[in-house]
Amino acid sequence: MSDPTPEAAQNHTSQRFEEAALELFFQRGYRSTTVRELALACGLTPGALYNHFPSKDQLLYSILRDVHEQLEAMMTEALADAGDDPRDRLRALVRAHAIFHTRFRKEARVANDEVLALEEPGRTEIVDVRRRGRGRFEDALRDGIAAGVFEVADVKIAAMAILNMGIRIAAWFRPDGPRSSEQVADLHADLALRMVGAPPA
Amino acid sequence: MSDPTPEAAQNHTSQRFEEAALELFFQRGYRSTTVRELALACGLTPGALYNHFPSKDQLLYSILRDVHEQLEAMMTEALADAGDDPRDRLRALVRAHAIFHTRFRKEARVANDEVLALEEPGRTEIVDVRRRGRGRFEDALRDGIAAGVFEVADVKIAAMAILNMGIRIAAWFRPDGPRSSEQVADLHADLALRMVGAPPA
Repeated sequence: MSDPTPEAAQNHTSQRFEEAALELFFQRGYRSTTVRELALACGLTPGALYNHFPSKDQLLYSILRDVHEQLEAMMTEALADAGDDPRDRLRALVRAHAIFHTRFRKEARVANDEVLALEEPGRTEIVDVRRRGRGRFEDALRDGIAAGVFEVADVKIAAMAILNMGIRIAAWFRPDGPRSSEQVADLHADLALRMVGAPPA
Repeated sequence: MSDPTPEAAQNHTSQRFEEAALELFFQRGYRSTTVRELALACGLTPGALYNHFPSKDQLLYSILRDVHEQLEAMMTEALADAGDDPRDRLRALVRAHAIFHTRFRKEARVANDEVLALEEPGRTEIVDVRRRGRGRFEDALRDGIAAGVFEVADVKIAAMAILNMGIRIAAWFRPDGPRSSEQVADLHADLALRMVGAPPA
Protein backbone atom coordinates (compact mmCIF):
# COMPACT_ATOMS: atom_id res chain seq x y z
CA MET A 1 0.00 0.00 0.00
CA SER A 2 1.42 3.38 -0.94
CA ASP A 3 1.35 6.46 1.27
CA PRO A 4 -1.65 8.74 0.78
CA THR A 5 -1.12 11.51 -1.74
CA PRO A 6 -0.43 14.97 -0.31
CA GLU A 7 -3.88 16.01 -1.45
CA ALA A 8 -5.59 13.12 0.35
CA ALA A 9 -3.62 13.87 3.51
CA GLN A 10 -4.70 17.51 3.27
CA ASN A 11 -8.36 16.46 2.91
CA HIS A 12 -8.03 14.10 5.83
CA THR A 13 -6.68 16.87 8.05
CA SER A 14 -9.45 19.23 6.93
CA GLN A 15 -11.98 16.61 7.88
CA ARG A 16 -10.42 16.13 11.33
CA PHE A 17 -10.69 19.89 11.85
CA GLU A 18 -14.31 19.90 10.78
CA GLU A 19 -15.18 17.05 13.12
CA ALA A 20 -13.41 18.68 16.06
CA ALA A 21 -15.02 22.02 15.21
CA LEU A 22 -18.49 20.49 15.00
CA GLU A 23 -18.05 18.96 18.44
CA LEU A 24 -16.75 22.18 20.00
CA PHE A 25 -19.31 24.43 18.29
CA PHE A 26 -22.01 22.05 19.49
CA GLN A 27 -20.71 21.85 23.07
CA ARG A 28 -19.59 25.45 23.64
CA GLY A 29 -21.12 27.48 20.83
CA TYR A 30 -19.29 28.98 17.86
CA ARG A 31 -18.45 32.30 19.48
CA SER A 32 -17.01 30.76 22.63
CA THR A 33 -14.73 28.38 20.73
CA THR A 34 -11.22 29.70 20.03
CA VAL A 35 -8.94 28.71 17.16
CA ARG A 36 -6.47 27.56 19.80
CA GLU A 37 -9.05 25.17 21.27
CA LEU A 38 -9.90 23.87 17.81
CA ALA A 39 -6.26 23.12 17.04
CA LEU A 40 -5.66 21.60 20.49
CA ALA A 41 -8.64 19.28 20.03
CA CYS A 42 -6.82 17.86 16.98
CA GLY A 43 -3.43 17.78 18.72
CA LEU A 44 -2.13 20.46 16.34
CA THR A 45 -1.10 24.10 16.41
CA PRO A 46 -3.30 27.08 15.52
CA GLY A 47 -0.91 27.61 12.59
CA ALA A 48 -1.87 24.21 11.18
CA LEU A 49 -5.52 25.22 11.22
CA TYR A 50 -4.76 28.28 9.12
CA ASN A 51 -3.12 26.02 6.51
CA HIS A 52 -6.54 24.55 5.88
CA PHE A 53 -8.98 27.31 6.73
CA PRO A 54 -8.27 31.02 6.49
CA SER A 55 -10.46 31.59 9.56
CA LYS A 56 -12.81 30.08 12.13
CA ASP A 57 -15.61 31.57 10.03
CA GLN A 58 -14.53 29.47 7.03
CA LEU A 59 -14.63 26.37 9.19
CA LEU A 60 -18.21 27.11 10.25
CA TYR A 61 -19.10 27.92 6.64
CA SER A 62 -17.63 24.63 5.42
CA ILE A 63 -19.58 22.63 8.04
CA LEU A 64 -22.83 24.45 7.30
CA ARG A 65 -22.43 24.14 3.53
CA ASP A 66 -21.83 20.38 3.82
CA VAL A 67 -24.77 19.78 6.13
CA HIS A 68 -27.19 21.74 3.98
CA GLU A 69 -25.96 19.90 0.88
CA GLN A 70 -26.66 16.63 2.70
CA LEU A 71 -30.21 17.71 3.58
CA GLU A 72 -30.82 18.97 0.03
CA ALA A 73 -29.62 15.66 -1.42
CA MET A 74 -31.85 13.64 0.91
CA MET A 75 -34.92 15.72 0.03
CA THR A 76 -34.17 15.62 -3.70
CA GLU A 77 -33.78 11.85 -3.64
CA ALA A 78 -36.96 11.42 -1.61
CA LEU A 79 -38.95 13.55 -4.05
CA ALA A 80 -37.51 11.71 -7.07
CA ASP A 81 -38.89 8.44 -5.67
CA ALA A 82 -42.23 9.85 -4.53
CA GLY A 83 -44.31 9.95 -7.70
CA ASP A 84 -46.86 12.66 -8.47
CA ASP A 85 -49.46 12.50 -5.72
CA PRO A 86 -49.05 15.61 -3.53
CA ARG A 87 -49.72 13.49 -0.43
CA ASP A 88 -46.88 11.14 -1.32
CA ARG A 89 -44.62 14.08 -2.09
CA LEU A 90 -45.31 15.80 1.22
CA ARG A 91 -44.84 12.49 3.03
CA ALA A 92 -41.49 11.98 1.27
CA LEU A 93 -40.27 15.48 2.14
CA VAL A 94 -41.31 15.27 5.79
CA ARG A 95 -39.78 11.80 6.16
CA ALA A 96 -36.46 12.85 4.60
CA HIS A 97 -36.35 15.98 6.76
CA ALA A 98 -37.14 13.98 9.91
CA ILE A 99 -34.60 11.24 9.17
CA PHE A 100 -31.95 13.86 8.50
CA HIS A 101 -32.68 15.38 11.93
CA THR A 102 -32.33 12.01 13.67
CA ARG A 103 -29.02 11.26 11.89
CA PHE A 104 -27.27 14.62 11.86
CA ARG A 105 -28.33 15.95 15.22
CA LYS A 106 -25.22 17.93 16.10
CA GLU A 107 -24.80 19.25 12.56
CA ALA A 108 -28.43 20.35 12.45
CA ARG A 109 -28.27 22.04 15.83
CA VAL A 110 -25.08 23.91 15.01
CA ALA A 111 -26.59 24.92 11.65
CA ASN A 112 -29.76 26.25 13.26
CA ASP A 113 -28.01 27.97 16.14
CA GLU A 114 -25.05 29.48 14.31
CA VAL A 115 -26.16 30.34 10.79
CA LEU A 116 -26.43 34.04 11.65
CA ALA A 117 -22.91 34.00 13.10
CA LEU A 118 -21.53 33.45 9.58
CA GLU A 119 -19.81 36.33 7.85
CA GLU A 120 -20.73 37.43 4.33
CA PRO A 121 -20.91 36.20 1.64
CA GLY A 122 -21.32 32.78 3.29
CA ARG A 123 -24.21 33.92 5.43
CA THR A 124 -26.35 35.04 2.50
CA GLU A 125 -25.48 31.88 0.59
CA ILE A 126 -26.54 29.55 3.42
CA VAL A 127 -29.62 31.59 4.30
CA ASP A 128 -30.66 31.31 0.63
CA VAL A 129 -30.17 27.53 0.69
CA ARG A 130 -32.38 27.37 3.77
CA ARG A 131 -34.99 29.57 2.11
CA ARG A 132 -35.06 27.23 -0.90
CA GLY A 133 -35.50 24.30 1.50
CA ARG A 134 -38.54 26.01 3.03
CA GLY A 135 -39.74 26.74 -0.49
CA ARG A 136 -39.89 23.02 -1.25
CA PHE A 137 -42.33 22.52 1.61
CA GLU A 138 -44.40 25.53 0.55
CA ASP A 139 -44.47 24.26 -3.05
CA ALA A 140 -45.58 20.83 -1.86
CA LEU A 141 -48.45 22.44 0.07
CA ARG A 142 -49.46 24.64 -2.89
CA ASP A 143 -49.40 21.65 -5.25
CA GLY A 144 -51.70 19.76 -2.90
CA ILE A 145 -54.05 22.74 -2.62
CA ALA A 146 -54.12 23.11 -6.42
CA ALA A 147 -54.88 19.39 -6.77
CA GLY A 148 -57.73 19.77 -4.29
CA VAL A 149 -56.28 17.31 -1.76
CA PHE A 150 -54.90 19.76 0.83
CA GLU A 151 -56.75 22.43 2.75
CA VAL A 152 -54.39 25.00 4.28
CA ALA A 153 -55.34 28.32 5.86
CA ASP A 154 -51.85 29.85 5.64
CA VAL A 155 -49.20 28.11 3.51
CA LYS A 156 -46.24 29.88 5.07
CA ILE A 157 -47.28 29.20 8.65
CA ALA A 158 -48.21 25.59 7.93
CA ALA A 159 -44.89 24.99 6.14
CA MET A 160 -43.01 26.61 9.02
CA ALA A 161 -44.89 24.50 11.58
CA ILE A 162 -44.10 21.30 9.67
CA LEU A 163 -40.45 22.25 9.30
CA ASN A 164 -40.10 23.28 12.91
CA MET A 165 -41.52 20.13 14.42
CA GLY A 166 -38.92 18.36 12.25
CA ILE A 167 -36.00 20.63 13.15
CA ARG A 168 -36.52 20.07 16.85
CA ILE A 169 -36.25 16.29 16.43
CA ALA A 170 -32.50 16.94 16.57
CA ALA A 171 -32.95 18.21 20.13
CA TRP A 172 -34.92 15.31 21.59
CA PHE A 173 -34.23 12.22 19.47
CA ARG A 174 -32.03 9.51 21.01
CA PRO A 175 -30.88 6.52 18.93
CA ASP A 176 -31.53 4.28 21.95
CA GLY A 177 -34.97 5.83 22.62
CA PRO A 178 -38.32 4.07 22.24
CA ARG A 179 -38.82 5.05 18.58
CA SER A 180 -36.52 4.36 15.64
CA SER A 181 -35.55 7.00 13.11
CA GLU A 182 -37.98 5.44 10.60
CA GLN A 183 -40.84 5.37 13.11
CA VAL A 184 -40.29 9.02 14.03
CA ALA A 185 -40.28 9.87 10.31
CA ASP A 186 -43.55 8.00 9.72
CA LEU A 187 -45.23 9.57 12.74
CA HIS A 188 -44.18 13.04 11.62
CA ALA A 189 -45.37 12.43 8.07
CA ASP A 190 -48.78 11.40 9.44
CA LEU A 191 -48.93 14.53 11.61
CA ALA A 192 -48.00 16.73 8.63
CA LEU A 193 -50.67 15.15 6.41
CA ARG A 194 -53.24 15.74 9.13
CA MET A 195 -52.10 19.37 9.42
CA VAL A 196 -52.88 19.95 5.74
CA GLY A 197 -56.29 18.30 5.97
CA ALA A 198 -55.26 15.05 4.26
CA PRO A 199 -55.17 12.55 7.13
CA PRO A 200 -53.66 9.21 6.09
CA ALA A 201 -56.19 6.37 5.87
CA MET B 1 -42.85 62.65 45.20
CA SER B 2 -40.45 60.93 47.57
CA ASP B 3 -37.27 59.14 46.58
CA PRO B 4 -37.62 55.42 45.95
CA THR B 5 -36.92 53.21 48.97
CA PRO B 6 -33.50 51.51 49.06
CA GLU B 7 -35.29 48.22 48.36
CA ALA B 8 -37.06 49.59 45.28
CA ALA B 9 -33.79 51.03 44.01
CA GLN B 10 -32.15 47.64 44.50
CA ASN B 11 -34.96 45.92 42.56
CA HIS B 12 -34.72 48.50 39.82
CA THR B 13 -30.98 47.87 39.43
CA SER B 14 -31.53 44.10 39.39
CA GLN B 15 -34.06 44.56 36.64
CA ARG B 16 -31.68 46.69 34.62
CA PHE B 17 -29.08 43.95 34.90
CA GLU B 18 -31.57 41.32 33.82
CA GLU B 19 -32.61 43.36 30.80
CA ALA B 20 -29.01 43.99 29.76
CA ALA B 21 -28.16 40.34 30.36
CA LEU B 22 -31.11 39.13 28.31
CA GLU B 23 -30.00 41.31 25.40
CA LEU B 24 -26.37 40.19 25.59
CA PHE B 25 -27.18 36.52 26.10
CA PHE B 26 -29.54 36.75 23.13
CA GLN B 27 -27.03 38.56 20.88
CA ARG B 28 -23.80 36.83 21.86
CA GLY B 29 -24.80 33.72 23.79
CA TYR B 30 -24.47 33.13 27.51
CA ARG B 31 -20.96 31.66 27.44
CA SER B 32 -19.52 34.46 25.31
CA THR B 33 -20.86 37.22 27.54
CA THR B 34 -18.53 38.41 30.29
CA VAL B 35 -19.52 39.94 33.63
CA ARG B 36 -17.53 42.99 32.57
CA GLU B 37 -19.65 43.37 29.43
CA LEU B 38 -22.81 42.96 31.47
CA ALA B 39 -21.78 45.69 33.87
CA LEU B 40 -20.59 47.98 31.07
CA ALA B 41 -23.93 47.60 29.27
CA CYS B 42 -25.54 49.13 32.39
CA GLY B 43 -22.87 51.80 32.82
CA LEU B 44 -21.73 50.19 36.07
CA THR B 45 -18.77 48.24 37.41
CA PRO B 46 -18.48 44.44 37.65
CA GLY B 47 -18.46 44.93 41.44
CA ALA B 48 -21.95 46.45 41.25
CA LEU B 49 -23.19 43.34 39.47
CA TYR B 50 -21.94 41.16 42.29
CA ASN B 51 -23.96 43.26 44.76
CA HIS B 52 -27.08 41.93 43.05
CA PHE B 53 -26.09 38.54 41.68
CA PRO B 54 -23.44 36.28 43.13
CA SER B 55 -22.55 35.12 39.60
CA LYS B 56 -23.38 35.25 35.91
CA ASP B 57 -25.05 31.88 36.44
CA GLN B 58 -27.45 33.40 38.95
CA LEU B 59 -28.36 36.09 36.44
CA LEU B 60 -29.21 33.45 33.82
CA TYR B 61 -31.11 31.46 36.44
CA SER B 62 -33.12 34.52 37.46
CA ILE B 63 -34.05 35.29 33.82
CA LEU B 64 -35.00 31.69 33.09
CA ARG B 65 -37.02 31.31 36.28
CA ASP B 66 -38.99 34.48 35.50
CA VAL B 67 -39.69 33.53 31.91
CA HIS B 68 -40.88 30.04 32.79
CA GLU B 69 -43.09 31.48 35.54
CA GLN B 70 -44.60 33.79 32.94
CA LEU B 71 -45.33 30.91 30.55
CA GLU B 72 -46.75 28.79 33.39
CA ALA B 73 -49.03 31.63 34.45
CA MET B 74 -50.28 32.19 30.90
CA MET B 75 -51.04 28.48 30.43
CA THR B 76 -52.73 28.19 33.85
CA GLU B 77 -54.92 31.20 33.13
CA ALA B 78 -55.81 29.90 29.67
CA LEU B 79 -56.83 26.50 31.06
CA ALA B 80 -58.87 28.08 33.86
CA ASP B 81 -60.98 29.88 31.26
CA ALA B 82 -61.24 26.95 28.84
CA GLY B 83 -64.02 24.80 30.28
CA ASP B 84 -64.05 21.01 30.16
CA ASP B 85 -64.03 20.05 26.49
CA PRO B 86 -60.61 18.54 25.65
CA ARG B 87 -60.65 20.36 22.29
CA ASP B 88 -61.15 23.70 24.03
CA ARG B 89 -58.45 22.87 26.55
CA LEU B 90 -55.90 21.94 23.89
CA ARG B 91 -56.82 25.06 21.93
CA ALA B 92 -56.32 27.20 25.05
CA LEU B 93 -52.92 25.65 25.79
CA VAL B 94 -51.64 25.97 22.23
CA ARG B 95 -52.88 29.56 21.98
CA ALA B 96 -51.26 30.61 25.27
CA HIS B 97 -48.01 28.91 24.29
CA ALA B 98 -48.03 30.55 20.85
CA ILE B 99 -48.84 34.01 22.20
CA PHE B 100 -46.09 33.68 24.78
CA HIS B 101 -43.64 32.90 21.96
CA THR B 102 -44.71 35.98 19.96
CA ARG B 103 -44.39 38.26 23.02
CA PHE B 104 -41.29 36.96 24.77
CA ARG B 105 -39.16 36.07 21.78
CA LYS B 106 -35.75 36.87 23.20
CA GLU B 107 -36.58 35.37 26.59
CA ALA B 108 -37.86 32.18 24.97
CA ARG B 109 -34.85 31.82 22.72
CA VAL B 110 -32.37 32.39 25.55
CA ALA B 111 -34.35 29.91 27.68
CA ASN B 112 -34.30 27.24 24.96
CA ASP B 113 -30.68 27.79 23.98
CA GLU B 114 -29.12 28.20 27.40
CA VAL B 115 -31.06 26.05 29.86
CA LEU B 116 -28.34 23.40 29.86
CA ALA B 117 -25.69 26.06 30.57
CA LEU B 118 -27.22 26.56 34.04
CA GLU B 119 -25.36 25.19 37.04
CA GLU B 120 -27.04 23.00 39.63
CA PRO B 121 -29.38 23.15 41.43
CA GLY B 122 -30.93 25.74 39.07
CA ARG B 123 -30.58 23.51 36.05
CA THR B 124 -32.58 20.63 37.52
CA GLU B 125 -35.21 23.05 38.81
CA ILE B 126 -35.76 24.70 35.41
CA VAL B 127 -35.58 21.41 33.50
CA ASP B 128 -38.33 20.11 35.85
CA VAL B 129 -40.48 23.18 35.19
CA ARG B 130 -40.10 22.55 31.48
CA ARG B 131 -40.97 18.88 31.90
CA ARG B 132 -44.15 19.86 33.77
CA GLY B 133 -44.99 22.23 30.90
CA ARG B 134 -44.66 19.37 28.41
CA GLY B 135 -46.73 17.26 30.79
CA ARG B 136 -49.64 19.69 30.46
CA PHE B 137 -49.73 19.10 26.72
CA GLU B 138 -49.46 15.32 27.15
CA ASP B 139 -52.25 15.39 29.74
CA ALA B 140 -54.43 17.42 27.39
CA LEU B 141 -53.88 14.83 24.65
CA ARG B 142 -54.58 11.90 27.01
CA ASP B 143 -57.79 13.57 28.26
CA GLY B 144 -58.97 13.96 24.67
CA ILE B 145 -58.13 10.34 23.86
CA ALA B 146 -59.97 9.16 27.00
CA ALA B 147 -62.99 11.27 26.01
CA GLY B 148 -62.91 9.72 22.54
CA VAL B 149 -62.39 13.02 20.72
CA PHE B 150 -58.64 12.74 19.93
CA GLU B 151 -56.88 10.04 17.99
CA VAL B 152 -53.12 10.07 18.61
CA ALA B 153 -50.59 7.39 17.59
CA ASP B 154 -47.86 8.54 20.00
CA VAL B 155 -48.73 11.02 22.75
CA LYS B 156 -45.15 12.03 23.51
CA ILE B 157 -44.21 12.65 19.88
CA ALA B 158 -47.45 14.50 19.13
CA ALA B 159 -47.03 16.69 22.24
CA MET B 160 -43.42 17.40 21.29
CA ALA B 161 -44.42 18.28 17.72
CA ILE B 162 -47.11 20.68 18.96
CA LEU B 163 -44.74 22.27 21.47
CA ASN B 164 -41.93 22.60 18.96
CA MET B 165 -43.92 24.30 16.25
CA GLY B 166 -44.86 26.76 19.01
CA ILE B 167 -41.36 27.23 20.38
CA ARG B 168 -40.00 28.13 16.96
CA ILE B 169 -42.54 30.95 16.58
CA ALA B 170 -40.03 32.95 18.65
CA ALA B 171 -37.52 32.55 15.80
CA TRP B 172 -39.66 33.73 12.90
CA PHE B 173 -42.46 35.91 14.27
CA ARG B 174 -42.22 39.65 13.60
CA PRO B 175 -44.67 42.09 15.23
CA ASP B 176 -44.85 43.99 11.92
CA GLY B 177 -45.32 40.80 9.87
CA PRO B 178 -48.47 39.79 7.96
CA ARG B 179 -50.07 37.92 10.88
CA SER B 180 -50.85 39.24 14.36
CA SER B 181 -49.98 37.38 17.51
CA GLU B 182 -53.66 36.36 17.87
CA GLN B 183 -53.86 35.12 14.29
CA VAL B 184 -50.70 33.04 14.68
CA ALA B 185 -52.16 31.59 17.88
CA ASP B 186 -55.45 30.68 16.18
CA LEU B 187 -53.69 29.13 13.17
CA HIS B 188 -51.47 27.04 15.45
CA ALA B 189 -54.42 25.90 17.53
CA ASP B 190 -56.17 24.75 14.35
CA LEU B 191 -53.04 22.87 13.22
CA ALA B 192 -52.73 21.20 16.64
CA LEU B 193 -56.38 20.10 16.63
CA ARG B 194 -55.89 18.64 13.19
CA MET B 195 -52.77 16.81 14.40
CA VAL B 196 -54.79 15.04 17.09
CA GLY B 197 -57.55 14.09 14.69
CA ALA B 198 -60.06 16.69 15.87
CA PRO B 199 -60.10 19.23 13.03
CA PRO B 200 -62.03 22.39 13.94
CA ALA B 201 -65.36 22.78 12.11
